Amino acid sequence: MTPVKQTNQSRFPVWFELKHVCRQSGARTGIVHTPHGSFETPSFMPVGTQATVKGMSPEEIKGMGAGMILANTYHLWMRPGSDIVREAGGLHTFMNWDRGILTDSGGFQVFSLSDLRHITEDGVGFKSHIDGSSHVLTPEKSIQVQNDLGADVIMAFDECTPWPAEHDYAKQSLQRTLRWLERCMKTHQRSHDQALFGIVQGGTHEDLRKISARETCSMDLPGYAIGGLSVGEPAELMVEMLEATVPILPADRPRYLMGVGSPDYLIEGSLRGIDLFDCVLPTRIGRNGTALTSQGRIIIRDAAYARDFGPLDADCDCYVCQNYSRAYIRHLIKAKEMFGLRLTSWHNLHFLSHLMQQIRDAISQDELLSFRESFYDRFGYVKAGQLKKK
Amino acid sequence: MTPVKQTNQSRFPVWFELKHVCRQSGARTGIVHTPHGSFETPSFMPVGTQATVKGMSPEEIKGMGAGMILANTYHLWMRPGSDIVREAGGLHTFMNWDRGILTDSGGFQVFSLSDLRHITEDGVGFKSHIDGSSHVLTPEKSIQVQNDLGADVIMAFDECTPWPAEHDYAKQSLQRTLRWLERCMKTHQRSHDQALFGIVQGGTHEDLRKISARETCSMDLPGYAIGGLSVGEPAELMVEMLEATVPILPADRPRYLMGVGSPDYLIEGSLRGIDLFDCVLPTRIGRNGTALTSQGRIIIRDAAYARDFGPLDADCDCYVCQNYSRAYIRHLIKAKEMFGLRLTSWHNLHFLSHLMQQIRDAISQDELLSFRESFYDRFGYVKAGQLKKK
Repeated sequence: MTPVKQTNQSRFPVWFELKHVCRQSGARTGIVHTPHGSFETPSFMPVGTQATVKGMSPEEIKGMGAGMILANTYHLWMRPGSDIVREAGGLHTFMNWDRGILTDSGGFQVFSLSDLRHITEDGVGFKSHIDGSSHVLTPEKSIQVQNDLGADVIMAFDECTPWPAEHDYAKQSLQRTLRWLERCMKTHQRSHDQALFGIVQGGTHEDLRKISARETCSMDLPGYAIGGLSVGEPAELMVEMLEATVPILPADRPRYLMGVGSPDYLIEGSLRGIDLFDCVLPTRIGRNGTALTSQGRIIIRDAAYARDFGPLDADCDCYVCQNYSRAYIRHLIKAKEMFGLRLTSWHNLHFLSHLMQQIRDAISQDELLSFRESFYDRFGYVKAGQLKKK
Repeated sequence: MTPVKQTNQSRFPVWFELKHVCRQSGARTGIVHTPHGSFETPSFMPVGTQATVKGMSPEEIKGMGAGMILANTYHLWMRPGSDIVREAGGLHTFMNWDRGILTDSGGFQVFSLSDLRHITEDGVGFKSHIDGSSHVLTPEKSIQVQNDLGADVIMAFDECTPWPAEHDYAKQSLQRTLRWLERCMKTHQRSHDQALFGIVQGGTHEDLRKISARETCSMDLPGYAIGGLSVGEPAELMVEMLEATVPILPADRPRYLMGVGSPDYLIEGSLRGIDLFDCVLPTRIGRNGTALTSQGRIIIRDAAYARDFGPLDADCDCYVCQNYSRAYIRHLIKAKEMFGLRLTSWHNLHFLSHLMQQIRDAISQDELLSFRESFYDRFGYVKAGQLKKK
C-alpha cells in the first residue's frame, strides 16, 4: 500500500483524506470529511439504534471524541417513523447531534427477523417487531427512508449473507445485492449532502469477495463497506476475507467494516486498512455489567469486586475511572440502577475511543504491529501472531 | 413569626442562618450550613435512594443547585451494606457527592413492609425485600448504620404514623417515637459531624402534634422534621397540622417537611415556615413519562405530542428544554430508552429547583402570597385560596 495523492476538494459530500501509511504494517490514518464536521480515522462509531446511544447524552459521546455515530433505519422507520424525523428537521436536529451520522439500510434487521420475512427480487416482506404490521423493504424504500432521516452517510440495501453460506447461495446473494445497489443509486435524491456507500458481500469465499469488491467499486461511490463479516465465522476467515477485499477498494475512499467492535477485531481491521467500524458491543456488554479494561474484560457483578475501591481500569483516565469505584458500580448494577448502566457504557465507549486513538498514534509512529503485540500481551484476548498479517 | 438573632457559629455541625422573613406571608429564607457546604432555603432535596438519584450524575444534580440530597438507610443497609459504604470512606466518597447528604432512619421502609414486619418496644422485625432474610431495626441499629453511612444530617428512628390513625394509636405511637428518640441520642457517636434531627409525629390530631413538637424540641436537637404528613390525608388537614406544629419549633433550627415534593405542597410548606423538603416525585413521575411544566403536568406518551417539536416547557431554560423536543422525548419514552428517563427526570428536578428559587425570590421580595396565586393560576393544581394561610 502506498500513499495516495489527495485533493482538498471532492465531488462527494463525504470524502477521505489520507494522512499517513504505517511503514511497519501498511495500515493508514486519515480524515473523513462530512457535512457535519471531520474526524480522524481509523475510528469507531458508537451505535445509537433508536436515535440515542443507549443511556448516553450527545455531549458525553462528543466528549469521547466521536465524530460519527450510527443509527438504525429499520428501528426509526418503524418508530417514530421517518416522516416525523424529517418534519423535525432530520435526525441531527431530532436527536441533538451535530456531528456525522451514518444510517444502515435496514436490511440487516429485516433479514434477521427470520421467522417473519420472505425475500424476493423486489425486496423483503416482513412483520414489524412492534405491532406485527406487514411491510416491504425494497432498495427504493430503504433509500427513501434514509433520505428522510438525512444522515451524512447512507448505506445501500444489501443482503448480509449469513455464515456459513454455500458458494452458490453467496454468489446469487451478492449478485442480487449488486442489482439492488443500482436501484439504490437511481432512487437516491440527496447525493449533494448524503454519501451512499456500497457494500461488499461474498460470504467467506475469496473469489466471490473479489468479484463483489470489483463490481461494487465499478459504481464509483463515495465510500465502500465490507459486510457479512464478524457474523460467527472464525477470526482467521474474517482476516482472509479482509485481505482479499481491501486491496481492491480504491485508496481514496473511506472503508467501513460493518458490525465490528471488539478490541482485537478493531486492531486487526485497522491493520488491514479499514477506516470505520461500528458495533453495539460497548453499550450492550456495559448494560450487562461487563467492563473492558487494559487487562481484559471484567464482570463487575462478581463478588470479588464488592470491596474493590479501585477504578474499573487503573490505566484509564475517563470520567468513570476518575470518580467511581468498582464497588460502587457493582452496587449500582446489582441494584438495577440506571446510573450503573450509564457508567459501564460510558467507560466501555471511552475504552474503544481511546484504543482507536492508540491505533492512530501507532500508525503515525509506524509501529502498529508492535502496538498489537503489547496490547494483546495485556488484554489477553487474541494472542499476537495468531492472526498473521501477510 | 419574627426574625431571630443569629450567630455565625453553632455548637451543631448543621445549622440554620436566617436571611429574611416575608412581610406578606411570614415565610422565611435562610442558609443551611453543613460540613459539606451551605445552601439557601427553602430547598428541595432530590432523593438518591440507593446512593444515586435515579438516572442522574452528581454533576447534573449539582448543576441544578442542589445543596443536599437524601439517601435511604434501609436500602443501603440491605445493599451494599453499611460496612462497605463505611470502608469506602462514607457515602459522600462512595457516590462521588461532595455536598450535603441526609439519611432517613429506615423506619418508613420497614413500617411499609406491612406483611413482613412486627413492631415491639425494642424496634421492628422485618424480612429483607431482596432475599427475605430476617432483620431487626432498632433505634440503636438505625443510628449505627447512619453513623457508618456518614451523612451530614441523620434522622431519628420513628414510626411514621399512618393515616388515618385513631387518637389513641397516634398518641401511643408518638410516645414510643419519643422514647426511641432518647435511645437514638444515646447511641449517636458522631455528634461533631453528623446532626441528628428529631421527628414530630401525632397523626392528624392537633393536640398530639403540639405535644410531640414540644417534647421533641425539649431535646435541644440541631434540627426538626415533621413526619407523617402527605401520607394520603386531605391537603386541608396537612396545612392544619403544619400550622399547629411549626410555631412550636425553634426559629433558629432548620425545619424539614418529610416526603413532600409536589409543587403545591412545596409552596404551602414554604409559606408556613418549612426550610427543607424531599420527595421521589420528580424522578418517579419522570420515569413514567410525566413532565412538570408551568402550565401543569403533561403525559408525554400522549399521541398529541408525536409531532410537537417544541420543548417540554416553553418557559423553562433547563438543558432538556434547550435541546430536545416533546416529539423526541416521547419517542424515547415509547421506545423504552434510558435517555428518555434521564431527560424527563432531569427536567422535573430542574423544575422543582427553579420553583424553590422562585419561592426564595418571592419571600425576599415580601410577595410569596402573590407568587402562590400567580403560580396556581398557570399550573392549575390547587386553586389559590383553597388553602387559606391564617
